[in-house]
Amino acid sequence: MRLSRYFLPILKETPKEAEIVSHRLMLRAGMIRQQSAGIYSWLPLGLRVLRKIERIVEEEQARAGAIQMLMPTLQSADLWRESGRYDAYGKEMLRIQDRHERDMLYGPTNEEMITDIFRSYVRSYKDLPLNLYHIQWKFRDEVRPRFGVMRGREFLMKDAYSFDIDQEKAVESYNRMFVAYLRTYKRMGLTAIPMRAETGPIGGDLSHEFIVLAETGESAVFCHADYLTKDVPGEDLDFNSDLTPIVKDWTSHYAATEDVVDMAEFEGTVPEEKRISARGIEVGQTFYFGTKYSEPMGAKVATSEGTEVPVHMGSYGVGVSRLLGAIIEANHDDEGIIWPASVAPFHVGLINLKPGDELSDGACEALYAKLEAAGIEVLYDDTDTRAGAKFATMDLIGLPFQVVAGPRGLKDGVLEVKDRRTGEKELLSPEATFDKLKAALTV
Amino acid sequence: MRLSRYFLPILKETPKEAEIVSHRLMLRAGMIRQQSAGIYSWLPLGLRVLRKIERIVEEEQARAGAIQMLMPTLQSADLWRESGRYDAYGKEMLRIQDRHERDMLYGPTNEEMITDIFRSYVRSYKDLPLNLYHIQWKFRDEVRPRFGVMRGREFLMKDAYSFDIDQEKAVESYNRMFVAYLRTYKRMGLTAIPMRAETGPIGGDLSHEFIVLAETGESAVFCHADYLTKDVPGEDLDFNSDLTPIVKDWTSHYAATEDVVDMAEFEGTVPEEKRISARGIEVGQTFYFGTKYSEPMGAKVATSEGTEVPVHMGSYGVGVSRLLGAIIEANHDDEGIIWPASVAPFHVGLINLKPGDELSDGACEALYAKLEAAGIEVLYDDTDTRAGAKFATMDLIGLPFQVVAGPRGLKDGVLEVKDRRTGEKELLSPEATFDKLKAALTV
Repeated sequence: MRLSRYFLPILKETPKEAEIVSHRLMLRAGMIRQQSAGIYSWLPLGLRVLRKIERIVEEEQARAGAIQMLMPTLQSADLWRESGRYDAYGKEMLRIQDRHERDMLYGPTNEEMITDIFRSYVRSYKDLPLNLYHIQWKFRDEVRPRFGVMRGREFLMKDAYSFDIDQEKAVESYNRMFVAYLRTYKRMGLTAIPMRAETGPIGGDLSHEFIVLAETGESAVFCHADYLTKDVPGEDLDFNSDLTPIVKDWTSHYAATEDVVDMAEFEGTVPEEKRISARGIEVGQTFYFGTKYSEPMGAKVATSEGTEVPVHMGSYGVGVSRLLGAIIEANHDDEGIIWPASVAPFHVGLINLKPGDELSDGACEALYAKLEAAGIEVLYDDTDTRAGAKFATMDLIGLPFQVVAGPRGLKDGVLEVKDRRTGEKELLSPEATFDKLKAALTV
Repeated sequence: MRLSRYFLPILKETPKEAEIVSHRLMLRAGMIRQQSAGIYSWLPLGLRVLRKIERIVEEEQARAGAIQMLMPTLQSADLWRESGRYDAYGKEMLRIQDRHERDMLYGPTNEEMITDIFRSYVRSYKDLPLNLYHIQWKFRDEVRPRFGVMRGREFLMKDAYSFDIDQEKAVESYNRMFVAYLRTYKRMGLTAIPMRAETGPIGGDLSHEFIVLAETGESAVFCHADYLTKDVPGEDLDFNSDLTPIVKDWTSHYAATEDVVDMAEFEGTVPEEKRISARGIEVGQTFYFGTKYSEPMGAKVATSEGTEVPVHMGSYGVGVSRLLGAIIEANHDDEGIIWPASVAPFHVGLINLKPGDELSDGACEALYAKLEAAGIEVLYDDTDTRAGAKFATMDLIGLPFQVVAGPRGLKDGVLEVKDRRTGEKELLSPEATFDKLKAALTV
């Protein structure tokens, strides 16, 4: 993408309203724009990251056997009256009346609707296990939305819903999602620790919050330091195999959020030098809640013996839009964002120091074409701006690599290649530049 | 995808509520489910088609220079008060109050919000032309939603917004979108005719509705028959070149919807044997409306002479979710849907006539793996169902090709390959089957 034809509205000043670094950097880097309290537009650069996060979530959901569908944003209040949650949900639910004065709501979550879909079509244990998921905009009318996309009102979530014949099978489904989550966050460059947590309005007995440690996290968390170095299963994992050992390993040490922490247990089971007491950002939560919704809503299946039982359900959320905030909280420095390559909006920032200069234009155009042909995404700064501003913008938006082309270096046949994370710079020929970037950025 | 692990809830009976064939077929093929009047869930098969349509729209928007972003579904009423449309829009606008009793609405369109974004960042003619688009769910509270996704209340639309320094440049932007639309619909197997149309609540002087002819179309249309055979520009078109001749060619003959038709002009300019008087489905609309929003909302840019002028705007919609209905209306027979390959949910339906039989399982697994490795998407029916039901399901869901594997054929070393559109069947070796499908389905 040529910057001269792109829309990248960089802010020079730090927005006053932004209290945390990810919010500040997303506004400054022209990724989002607030439209109302807690409601954002995703500017082109922000949308690219959002889509990359979605793709990783989708790939890992598919790997774990979940099937993608899409439920609407607006729901009928009647469904929520069936489950008993319509009155219970409180003011966070955005309630709406349509022109015929029918009660509707902007979905804050989808247990009722998916249960309704299930009961309309599925009758037999033969169709189980089933795991359906979607990625959709949701709304929670927070009293005080803040921290940018970390705590917005309109936000994008992945939620999956599993259906099984009994608790034992349901735990197998739970484990598949649990392991998928480990892989999902890892691929985004995050270490997410599954912690014991409150189940809140979703309900259920078995639940984990997946927490990324960060100073600006919304809650205090307590866990064993070994979680930070634990291995995550690789691509070759068979999700049809028994995943119990992996889940056991990942829940073997103490890890809990402040809502449920038992300090005596924490201190009793974790050696002092391994105790982490920090703040954390919740990036996902898994629930097994059995028949909480299937019972009142009559979602039943026939067993192999011919009796009818309410189906056992779980739900599994990933905060897709909030993940941008979490990733930036964990990956930035004083100059700006430092994207992990897997979610970077572009892989390479190519800076032409002197547009109009034959040597510079020629080198840039050639490298740009070659990189794009190799599937490497380039933001090519071909604009007529001073060098300092170009460097500052590239550091701010945090693409993994920067390549600088100018008449002086090119007279000696070299480009400057900078690794945004380490800050290391190298002078390389155009060929060596291409080879280096290709090796670093393609699998 | 193995059907045994998929979620494809086929309906045996024709739903009574569905008045038109696309609605009936989408319900029967397990593509959508109505959740409330005019509000649908997209079941896995339906979502796959929706995503393919989105991808085509995105590719053609990018080719024409439009840049993708994403605006939220909910908007502040204040923006609409600035443009004067808040009170004018009527009951189709879904009005909402949040917990702080602020007036909001579920966006039916986004002229106000994009104008607000533009005025916040862009100040100079140097940043023009600019075309920003998004694909987002919208809501129009129709009195009587009907025809499935063709006239739903919550629906997915692409809308692009162009910004130019003057009318001449704005018409160039208009032409780029006009030509992008010709290509977009063509790639989905549709012939869409640009017709003179009313501008309605968007406003403006220059506007075309893109219409697909279909018996079940919502409005009567009148056009010259040559539109049905006119060439659409190929992939090699340079969108930076002068597109006027193409637009002129595509608007040279008479074509108008019933709202604006002048029968005297139609009959006066179109020879009798070329007159088409039919019904049509609107799948997109383009508008140039100049300064209608930029003037009241103060979206101004500095010209090269240093004066300030309100920016000239256009907007360009594609009815993404409604396109599924339009494509099915134009592509079906008595047995079901016949997808064009470009938007088919899967390319091939592979039917194992006797799961458990070593020969059948072996042939199916081998072909399934080979096709998937070649990037051909296969729905593999590995279920234990009778042959008749399998055939009927495959015909109903309308994948471009079916491959049938059974012990009888395999004893002679052959599979049966059926072209869903022509009905032609061939007996081919597994190798020849692969070669045929690869040649037909990959570029």
